[in-house]
Amino acid sequence: MKFCSQCGGLVTLRIPPADTMHRYVCDACSAIHYENPKIVVGCVPEHGDKILLCRRAIEPRYGYWTVPAGFMENDETLQEAAARETLEEALATVEIGELFAVIDVVRARQVHMMYRARLIGGEYGVGQESLETELFDPADIPWDEIAFPSVRFALEVWLADLRQGQAGLHMTAFRAPRLQR
Amino acid sequence: MKFCSQCGGLVTLRIPPADTMHRYVCDACSAIHYENPKIVVGCVPEHGDKILLCRRAIEPRYGYWTVPAGFMENDETLQEAAARETLEEALATVEIGELFAVIDVVRARQVHMMYRARLIGGEYGVGQESLETELFDPADIPWDEIAFPSVRFALEVWLADLRQGQAGLHMTAFRAPRLQR
Repeated sequence: MKFCSQCGGLVTLRIPPADTMHRYVCDACSAIHYENPKIVVGCVPEHGDKILLCRRAIEPRYGYWTVPAGFMENDETLQEAAARETLEEALATVEIGELFAVIDVVRARQVHMMYRARLIGGEYGVGQESLETELFDPADIPWDEIAFPSVRFALEVWLADLRQGQAGLHMTAFRAPRLQR
Repeated sequence: MKFCSQCGGLVTLRIPPADTMHRYVCDACSAIHYENPKIVVGCVPEHGDKILLCRRAIEPRYGYWTVPAGFMENDETLQEAAARETLEEALATVEIGELFAVIDVVRARQVHMMYRARLIGGEYGVGQESLETELFDPADIPWDEIAFPSVRFALEVWLADLRQGQAGLHMTAFRAPRLQR
C-alpha cells in the first residue's frame, strides 16, 4: 500500500495515536487503513458414501485437489459462502451442515472454516476454477495431491469423525503452511 | 474507495474479467481491490462462578457492557486475538478454551467468534477502551445494557450451556443487527 484509497495522498506505515500496532496512515487526510485476516470458507459435500473434490484450474496449487472453498464475500453468511463456492467450483447445490474445522493459516493471514455438507440431487459439474470434479470414496482420497495443509487437515478430521461416528469441531493453526508437510 | 492504493490512480466499481461481482478496479494499473468481511473475536472470561464484562469507553455503544472482543489482527491466531483483546480491554490474562459461538453480522460485514476462557490469577483492571470492568454473577448480567446483539447471543448461549451442563457450538446470523432487538 502506497496511496490513500480515500484521498489519493501518500501513506506511511506508523503507529496511530492510541494504537499499539503499525498501520498505513495517510499523510494528507490522516485516514487509517487497517488490514485484517480474510476468511476462507468451504465444505465437504457428501453424496452417499462419497465426497466431492475439485482439481484446481487456478494458481496457487494448479492441478491439485481441494474441497470447494474460497474467500467469503461481503453481504453473505458463512454458510451462504460455502454453498456459493460449491456452486461456482463444482456446479453443485449443497445443503450446508455443521462447522467442523477452523484453521488459522497465520502466514497467509487467513482463517479457514470448513462445514459438513450434503449434495442435493447428486448433480455436479466442472466450474471455471476447476479442471475436473469427482466423487471420491474416502479410501481413494488423493492424499499426495491435496492442494493445501488446511484442506488435508479438514479431510483428515472429517474422516476420523466418520470412522468414530462423531461430529466434532476441530481447530488447529498453521504458522508456516508451505513448510509443514 | 476512490483511489488505487498501489498506484494512486482512480478506481471504478465494476465486474472484473472472469469475476461475477463488482469490485473496485484501478483504471490506471488494473489492480483489483477486494473487500471482505472482518473477524471480531472475543471471549467470556470465567472466574469462579462469575464472568468478566467490560463497559465500553468508545463508540459505537459507549457506556454499554460487552465481553472482551475486537478485530482480529494479521499475524495472530483466533485464540491469541481473543487473549490480546482481553488484556487490552480488561488488563486480564486468560486461558482461551473452546469456540462456542460463531455469529454472522452480515450488515456490518463481520463474523464474530466467541471463546470460552478462564481468568488466570484472578486479576483484572480497566483498559483504555473500557470505562469499568466487573465480575458479574450470571444472575446479575445487565441484559438491558448489553452493547451488541452478538454479545447478547453469546451470553445467552453461554448461560444456557452452563445451566444444562453442556458445552456446544452455537451459530446464528444477524442480517440487520441494530433493528432486531
